[in-house]
Amino acid sequence: MALEASVIDATDRGLAYGDGLFETMRAHGGTLPWWPRHRARLIDGARRLGIAMPSDARFEAALDDALRASPDGVIKLILTRGAGARGYAPGSGVEPTLIVSASAPPAAMQDALHVDVLELRLGVQPALAGMKHLNRLEQVLGAREAAERGLDDGLMADADGLLTCSTRANLFARVDGRWITPAVDRAGVAGVARGVLFDHWSPPDGLHVAALPLDALLRVDALLLTNAVRGILVVGRLGARALDPRPDGLIDARAALAASHPAFRES
Amino acid sequence: MALEASVIDATDRGLAYGDGLFETMRAHGGTLPWWPRHRARLIDGARRLGIAMPSDARFEAALDDALRASPDGVIKLILTRGAGARGYAPGSGVEPTLIVSASAPPAAMQDALHVDVLELRLGVQPALAGMKHLNRLEQVLGAREAAERGLDDGLMADADGLLTCSTRANLFARVDGRWITPAVDRAGVAGVARGVLFDHWSPPDGLHVAALPLDALLRVDALLLTNAVRGILVVGRLGARALDPRPDGLIDARAALAASHPAFRES
Repeated sequence: MALEASVIDATDRGLAYGDGLFETMRAHGGTLPWWPRHRARLIDGARRLGIAMPSDARFEAALDDALRASPDGVIKLILTRGAGARGYAPGSGVEPTLIVSASAPPAAMQDALHVDVLELRLGVQPALAGMKHLNRLEQVLGAREAAERGLDDGLMADADGLLTCSTRANLFARVDGRWITPAVDRAGVAGVARGVLFDHWSPPDGLHVAALPLDALLRVDALLLTNAVRGILVVGRLGARALDPRPDGLIDARAALAASHPAFRES
Repeated sequence: MALEASVIDATDRGLAYGDGLFETMRAHGGTLPWWPRHRARLIDGARRLGIAMPSDARFEAALDDALRASPDGVIKLILTRGAGARGYAPGSGVEPTLIVSASAPPAAMQDALHVDVLELRLGVQPALAGMKHLNRLEQVLGAREAAERGLDDGLMADADGLLTCSTRANLFARVDGRWITPAVDRAGVAGVARGVLFDHWSPPDGLHVAALPLDALLRVDALLLTNAVRGILVVGRLGARALDPRPDGLIDARAALAASHPAFRES
């Protein structure tokens, strides 16, 4: 474990209010090939929350330490508004807190996951949607529900019944032969792997950002889950229904990730 | 400042996910007269989140230190699920983290606040509503908006347009001569001072839990903001409208708090 700090001030606003952002990143050979995308999402989140971005030099120093400790593991970065006075109002002149830690690469998962739609709905909050912020109780409760139900992951719909994401991944669903992924402007996170697929995967009928209401699930016959640590996972069973475990597009989508990030090259 | 810990492990889930609860309490003469109510809310939140409650002895030891340091100040308590492995799923057997800190009593505020309805809406999330959990980015952004607009506080409606709370208080509004307060089962926090008023304040026409849609604001002619640190504050101006700064009921409501907690006795 390499940290800019292994402990943080108990008055840090990241703890008090979840007032901050994080990124979880796959390392490969001591580098972070997707760092520009993670950094861009951090910059966007920091702008929206009004958190000062640390200098590139500060990021690099902290990341270099972690990458030396775990050159092919998982690097997690937390950026908070910093330690400060009591009260919700952010104040000014606070020095942001940066925490970088490293862990082992994730264990391999079975290739065709069993998922279902969770009872828990996501609140609709456009002011926070898309960001990878530290307010993650919905994901904690969702992951608990998925575990209690014996699922590999859980699909989460928002309060309006629109499917948004899983507890830890973005969704790509094949509906009536077309690949679609939900927007993340009302809930959910704008995933880095999702962004890579937008840029590098071109299914024959296009890749579409479209609403995925719960009743459309009956027309889904293939479902992919994507995140920046595990890449692309395939869903084999959605509730009681079997889905296509080797859908067309999967090889192309995985090739798109691998072209962008060698950690995801098919072995 | 007295803390069970002045620093916390950087892997604490309270920081990583806001996976925890807090209470902010008014001390009086080295005691916390409302501790049973704060404790009851903590127990309820811990049950809903599945966080193990520390023993009473552990709470008492941490609170005693803080009360000695600040016998008439403000005591803040944070309870998190503890430090743990990466990943949203809560796991089991984690030792919860308890942090207690003390600060000076709040500065006096002007007696009739200027508030307005914020642009920012609260997401609707029944699974988290009522709890004083650590996911407070909506309040941070709301407090920022209120400060930018020069308001003393901001009123927050939920995504369905129902007024719920201010950034840091519960609401009691006089509408058509009746005192009402919004439910907190879809958003907002079940305030301790709000609970005291339920138990000890009996306006002539009753105290009603009722929806307060935005268009009902035109019929509000008096508005009280309540929390466990400041007690009852009166709103003097709601947007451009003057409200009654000395409404009937205010003396009775303040007497109800004072009877329950001597820190709120009228001086």
